[in-house]
Parts: sequence; structure tokens; C-alpha cells
Amino acid sequence: MADSVYSNYPPHLNPAQKEFLVRTIKDWTVQHGLMIRPASTFISKESDPQGVVATSAPVTLFPSPFPKSCFEEAQALQTVYNRLYAAITCDEQWIGDIMEDLIDVDDFISHLWKVHLAVKEEGYAQSLSLGLYRSDYMPHVPSASTPPSLKQVEFNTISSSFGGLSCLVASLHTELLNSPPGHPIAYPSHPLLDSNQPPENTSVETLSAGLAAAHTAYGASKSSPALPTCILFVVQENERNVFDQLALSRQLTKVHKVPVFRLLSSEVFDHTHIPVSNPSRPLIYRPPHADGVEFEVTTVYLRCFYTPTDYKSERDWEARTHLERSAAIKCPTVLNQLAGCKVVQQVLAEDNGPDHLAKFLAGTDPTTIARLRATFAPQHDLSSSGRGRELALNPATAANHVLKPQREGGGNNIYKEAIPEFLRSLPETEWKRWILMELIQPPAEAQNVALRPDGEVLSGHVIGELGIYGTILWDQAGGKVLHNEQGGWLMRTKAKDVNEGGVATGFSSLDSVVLY
Amino acid sequence: MADSVYSNYPPHLNPAQKEFLVRTIKDWTVQHGLMIRPASTFISKESDPQGVVATSAPVTLFPSPFPKSCFEEAQALQTVYNRLYAAITCDEQWIGDIMEDLIDVDDFISHLWKVHLAVKEEGYAQSLSLGLYRSDYMPHVPSASTPPSLKQVEFNTISSSFGGLSCLVASLHTELLNSPPGHPIAYPSHPLLDSNQPPENTSVETLSAGLAAAHTAYGASKSSPALPTCILFVVQENERNVFDQLALSRQLTKVHKVPVFRLLSSEVFDHTHIPVSNPSRPLIYRPPHADGVEFEVTTVYLRCFYTPTDYKSERDWEARTHLERSAAIKCPTVLNQLAGCKVVQQVLAEDNGPDHLAKFLAGTDPTTIARLRATFAPQHDLSSSGRGRELALNPATAANHVLKPQREGGGNNIYKEAIPEFLRSLPETEWKRWILMELIQPPAEAQNVALRPDGEVLSGHVIGELGIYGTILWDQAGGKVLHNEQGGWLMRTKAKDVNEGGVATGFSSLDSVVLY
Repeated sequence: MADSVYSNYPPHLNPAQKEFLVRTIKDWTVQHGLMIRPASTFISKESDPQGVVATSAPVTLFPSPFPKSCFEEAQALQTVYNRLYAAITCDEQWIGDIMEDLIDVDDFISHLWKVHLAVKEEGYAQSLSLGLYRSDYMPHVPSASTPPSLKQVEFNTISSSFGGLSCLVASLHTELLNSPPGHPIAYPSHPLLDSNQPPENTSVETLSAGLAAAHTAYGASKSSPALPTCILFVVQENERNVFDQLALSRQLTKVHKVPVFRLLSSEVFDHTHIPVSNPSRPLIYRPPHADGVEFEVTTVYLRCFYTPTDYKSERDWEARTHLERSAAIKCPTVLNQLAGCKVVQQVLAEDNGPDHLAKFLAGTDPTTIARLRATFAPQHDLSSSGRGRELALNPATAANHVLKPQREGGGNNIYKEAIPEFLRSLPETEWKRWILMELIQPPAEAQNVALRPDGEVLSGHVIGELGIYGTILWDQAGGKVLHNEQGGWLMRTKAKDVNEGGVATGFSSLDSVVLY
Repeated sequence: MADSVYSNYPPHLNPAQKEFLVRTIKDWTVQHGLMIRPASTFISKESDPQGVVATSAPVTLFPSPFPKSCFEEAQALQTVYNRLYAAITCDEQWIGDIMEDLIDVDDFISHLWKVHLAVKEEGYAQSLSLGLYRSDYMPHVPSASTPPSLKQVEFNTISSSFGGLSCLVASLHTELLNSPPGHPIAYPSHPLLDSNQPPENTSVETLSAGLAAAHTAYGASKSSPALPTCILFVVQENERNVFDQLALSRQLTKVHKVPVFRLLSSEVFDHTHIPVSNPSRPLIYRPPHADGVEFEVTTVYLRCFYTPTDYKSERDWEARTHLERSAAIKCPTVLNQLAGCKVVQQVLAEDNGPDHLAKFLAGTDPTTIARLRATFAPQHDLSSSGRGRELALNPATAANHVLKPQREGGGNNIYKEAIPEFLRSLPETEWKRWILMELIQPPAEAQNVALRPDGEVLSGHVIGELGIYGTILWDQAGGKVLHNEQGGWLMRTKAKDVNEGGVATGFSSLDSVVLY
């Protein structure tokens, strides 16, 4: 079934059709802010010394087909996944046991853990914790005769990106499907496109509502006299994906009427402080552009600090600690970030040993837990006793696997036949930094056409990855959930011979879906 | 009074304030499509061979002060101006008499007039005519003690631009004035900015509603069998100001549900035709991207053909004639375009001779006519008998004047002391191509800061020009008015030592106003 859907999709474009679609999309992206800042390899610093030009985000010309059952299952499970990761984050002991093994070999995880321990020793000033998550999936189609099943690629607990742009891609494809009004001809006719459209995509609304819920839950200023409150987006320098983030701050400002400021991670100490005299440890932000004005930060939203390169020196670790020990609600806390390590997914997926899911989702009906468990792809650590090592070192079995590092961010996976040689190039003591995961087999015939940020148009076989956004606000002390929502999604599509999926790095494209 | 408003405005920016404002505006423009395609002198074709990057439209950092009385007077007079220019266009004889003198010396006007005569001979197939106008003004402040009065700079009857972007600049400044919500600090505090904001700007709604009114008035398809109908935007190649135009087509598509297509003026004959067999002469558009599909064009909206360089060969004149003779409603017709010649403004402004205003605005109350007349700056032709020649050739009086060519488009004016020498370089027979206009004296102390499309930030003394948009749909046969509206405005601000006002050419910036 799946194969027959993909084999003649997308419809063929003659040169005039392609020219029309590409030009229309190039203009639409600018008009609607579906943009990124260009890479310096495309528009050099010399060409644009003031950094004023922008370019189209990478987008597909067509929405991609996606199995309706898988899409709906992913949406249905999101609030359960939210609860699962909140519950894991509440179980510091459990996370600590898992991290223990990694601390010796993974500097990054070790550093994060130390931040947690330091703040724990002083005592956390804020027990509320906010998660803005994205659970990424592929439809798994091992053979033409089996119906597609939903398999999780990864679960992101920090800096889950593209929610600000993914809804725009859905709008773009929806408009093309209906253009011009009454007599749609922007796309060549195709059974999958005729009277079909991408499902509603509320990514901006959902993610912003999560941040707004935290802002409200923070309550009154803890300063005396009381200060106005704000949300602080802590961001990377030279962020090319800035318009994705600004979509959330615009929604917070316009709809929720919440002040939002952006602060470079390198300038945390320049513009924020925690008054020594105030035991509540409010985080005070002083906007550099307004002398003498102070805001109290209710919520720190991290769009940085998720990758080792975000910590250039000890000062950056101190900045992270400074935010962590403040009374601001963190999105995420260090513990919640650690809960997103691949090793956690791998431990959850283990099919022998304790039933972690049942424990963390106590009170959830077993059928739902089983459905969630069914989204796990088989995955293994590389301990000397386990099956993982055997599967990874044998070229025949390695061919069906991907080797993933613990941390977020993309760009570091090792695929298939490259795995044995890669592992042998590392000391065995470092192997535990990696997780071996059985490759998900997405529809083999899927194709699409993509407009790249440099204006090139590429077409060919592709692999699509669906992300579902969810937000949860909970109390670490006791685990009470104050807000738990799912809403909005991301389709990312990459050329099949490209193994990585980080859109901002230019390998893959933002897409949307038509369900079948 | 005016001087005291301008003398301490805008508020001073320290480096951190300036950095914040510039960065915020650079991002805002991208997020909201307040963009243009970059000039090739900024981003070369080699850097961006596919033409995918875009850059911020030139915008001021602050809204400019503008006298409230002048702003309101300009709005109040717009529907009267609409009627005036519709009435002029209905009086072919009157226009012909004025053009007669110019036909020998002005190739462009001569060509336009010939198009009209050719179509007239065959008989016009469409008696409805649509105007999308912009009347441009300055506040005239000859001395500090006189209250500002409203003076018209020019009246645009073809390709009146920037309505799609000017409302965005008003939104930008409004957001900055209110940012962050509840505790505005984006701008330094200033009496003119505190609890003040730009007036509502409905330029997109107004201009699109005009086009939609024409589309509806066209009525049913004149083809057999009936075809679906559409509006056709006929545009220039390599249009850098494309997002201005797309704002109107988006509104037409989304709100009015009218199909809109864009067609290069050079491709009119490739994709449109008038069936010889159909005496109604419907204009049929065949989208190149949809084989076998045909639309009937209800309304031709010209964003080209307003300047001689738009007619590269006889074929372009034939294309204009082809559109003119079709049954599509033209925005504008050739006659309506000719009514926008500077000589018409000059004849209307003549203070001896027949009272043209009273004739064209018959039935309008004399006070309103007097108010409209009060917006005229003194202007003269350069005929041997008139005062104009004397004023232009004397350096002392020339210093208070500008010399304008008949046609639209900007970029061709001669200013002040340069006038006598310029005229003497031309054969006297060509002098009638020019109109001498007394310089309007805008507030001398006005200043602002502008972000240029290449990212440079300039500040200094400026001259601002307010444009008011209006639309009118009327029947040439009898002059009955079917739709007459004003709405939306444009503030353009140029550096004071730059004498020209075409924003797209990079000399001036899009602005908004705070009224005082």
C-alpha cells in the first residue's frame, strides 16, 4: 500500500510548472518570514557586512505523503510522552544511576551533572519545570505487505526547534493546493493532492502557550519593590534560525502580552544578576538599551547550551549554573536536558529488566503504555555484556543500525557499514558514549523536490521525519502537572543519501504532510 | 510651533539603544515581509545567481512627526481628488487639447496618445475604468510663525506604489512604541512618542478593495463557454519591489477569493490573446504552468508601462495597445495615465483662465473645491508668453523652484540653481516638456535615522512626503462613479541633501507618522 502511494509522487513538473512553483515559493517565503539568515559560505561577510540579508528556509515544493494512522498515533501519544519525561526528570536518583556510567567518559554530560549537583547542594530556588518537547518519528515500513508503524527517532527536551517555521510550511503548501481560489492549478493534478491538505499546525500557539503558562505560574515578582516580569530567550551568537524563535516571541507578545527579551548566552552575566540579599533568588534582567530599567525573569527559555560548543569556557558553565540556581522557571532544567540523552531512550526501550514505563507512567492504562512502547525502535548500549556490541561490530548487522551519541543536536551520527570501523578507532572505554539503534525503514520510494537556501532546486529520493510538539509544566517537588498539551508538528525531509537531519545546517528541508 | 516639535526629535540614541533598535528592525522586517530584493550593486548576481535572497526595505527607525491638520485634510480631500481625476479622464477633448502641444516634443506622451487614438478608432470595448491613486503632499511651513499648510507634490494615476509595505512600517513603529507590552522601552522616552501612535493604515485593504470592485463590476465571462475570471498584474522584469505588489495579491486571494496572476510586460503576447471571433474582445490569459487552462481577465493592473524604459521596442507599445483594446478593465487606461501628467496639475493650478476645478467637480460644494485648490503649489509652464520662463531662467527665482518632466516615476527632477543652466542646454522647443513648480518648504528641522537595504544606518536632516491612497471605479461613458474610497497612506522620508524621492531606487526610506 505505502509503496503504491509513493511510487508516482510527487507529480512530474515540466519546466514552466517548475519555474512557476519555485518563483512562487521564493516570493512566498520572503513575504511570510519563512526565512533564515544565509550561511557565510553562501553570502559572505564581505558581501553583507551588516548582516541584513535573509534567504528562504530550505523547503520542499510539495507536501510529503504520511500515513494517517501514524500521524494520529503520534499526536495521541504526545501528552503521555510529556508526562513520561516529566516523571523521569522528577526521579533524580534514576537519572543519576544512568549518568554515573557516562560521567567518566563524557565531559559534556559530566559537566551538566555537576551543574545539577551544585545547585542541588545549595537547594533549588524553583520547583516548577517547563518542557517544550518535540518527539521525532518515522513511519516504519519493513516490507511492502506490512502496514506502516510509528517509530520514534528521538525525543528532544531542549531547544526543540522549527515550531516557528513548520506551521508556515504547512500554510505554504495549503495555499499552493488552493491556488488560485476556486480553480487550483499551482500544482499539477494528482490523486494525493486533489481535495487533500496538510492537517492544522498549531506549533506556534502550542509552544508559546507553554511558555505563557510558566510565566503565569511563576506568580508575582519576588523582588521588593516588585519588578515587571518577562520571559528571557537565551540564544546563540550568530543564530541563523532566528526567525523560528521570533515567531514564538511575537506570539507571546501579541497574544499573551508577555514581555520577551533575547539574550546571548555569552552575555548572561553582563545583563542578569541574582541579588545576594534576596533568598528567593529572582533572576533580574537589565535591558542594555534602557538605563535603570529592571525586569524579573519568570522563565528562561534556552535556545542554546544544548551542545558542547555552546560552552566555550568555564564562564559559560557558570552562566548555566547561574540561570539554574535562579528562581526563574527553566525550559529546560539541567535534569530535564539530561533526561533527553539517548541513553535514557535506550534504557526505556530495554525489553529485559525493570519495566520503567510502568513505573513512570503509574496510573496510565496499560494499553496506552503498550502503544507508547510500540514506538520504540530496538536500541542497545555497547556494554561488554550486551547484544549491542555484537550487532555493531559485525558489518552484516551494523548495516541495519545507526550509532548515536548521547547528546542532542544532530550532525554526529554514524551510519551502517561505517559503524565497526568507527568504533574500533575509539578506545573501548568511550563506547558507552554511544547508543546503537536499529534503523527505521521509511518508505523506500518517497521522493520530493526541495528549494535550498542558496536557490538551488534538488529532487530525488527522500526520507521524512515527523516531529510532534508538546509542552508540559510540572512541579519537581511531587510531580504535580500544571499544564500538559500537544499541538503542532514538523515534517523534515532529507535527501536519501544524506544521513543527517539538522535542517539549519542545510542538509534537509522543512516540509509538510498530506495524510493517506 | 512646527519648529519646536522637530528641533529635539527624534530622541538621542546611545550605542546600546541604537544597536537594539537596528537589530530589532532588521529582524522584524524579515519576519513580516517588509522586504525588497537587493540591488545588484549590493548583492551581485554572482553571489546569488538564483536570486533568492532578500533584504530589508529602507525604513526609518522612528516615525516622523506630521501636522495632524494636514494629515486629516489630505484624507478628507482624497475622494474629491479621485472624482477630479476620473472627471478629467472622461473629458478626452480637454486632455487632447493639453497633449497637443506636447506630442511634437515628447515621444513618450505622443506614443501614449497614439495608443488611445488607435483604440478609440476601433472603439473601446470596456467603458469602466479603475484608478488606484496616490496623492503626495508635504506640509508647507514658509516661516516659523505660520501654521503648516498642505501642499500637493504630485498626483499618481499609474503604478502608485508602496501601499503593500507602508502599512507594515506603521505596524513596525506601532509595535516598537508598545514594546514590550505594558512597559514600553524600545524607544527612549520622548513627549511626541509617549502615548502616541501612527494612525491606522489600511493601504492594503483599500487598494485591494478597489481591484476587487473592478473584478466584480466586470461581471460574467464574455467567453463562450464561460471561463473562470482573474485579475492580471502586469509587471516589470527584475522588479525589486515585488513584495509591495504581492501584499495586494495576497489580500485579493485570501479575502476577496479572486484569482490573481502576474505577467511580465515583455510576455503579454506570449500568454494572453483576444479571440478574433469574439466582438466583446475578452482578454484571455493562459497560465504557462497549466496546459490548456484559460482565464478571462477582468482587470489589468499595471505595475509597469509608466516610464519610457518600460517600452523597449514597438512590440511593447503593441502590448499596451493590445491590453487597452481588450474588454478587461484597465488600472489605469492610457487616458487616465495621461491625466496624471504634470502639465495637467499645472493647468489645474493656473490662477487665470477658466476654472477647471469648478467644471470637473460640478455639484461639489465650493468650499471643498477651495480647500482642494489650496493644496496646489504655484506652478507654471515654460511657454514664451508665461511667467514660468522668467522664473526659471533667473537664478534668484529658480532657487525657489523645481523643474519636473511630464511623466511619472521620479528620478528626473531638476532643482533650484541647476534649472537655468539645464534649460539653456535644451533646445527651446523641448521646454514645454517641463513644468516649473514653486518649492514647498517642509519643516526645516526635521530629522530621522534610516536603516538602508545594505544595512547601513544613516541619520540627519530629512524631508518627508505623505501619500494618501484612493481608489475609484467609474464609467467613462457618462462618468457614473461605482466605487470611490480613500484609505491608507505612505510616509516617505529622504535625506535632505538628496533631492529625489523614489524609495525603490534607494534614495529615501519608508516611514510612518505620529501626528501633532
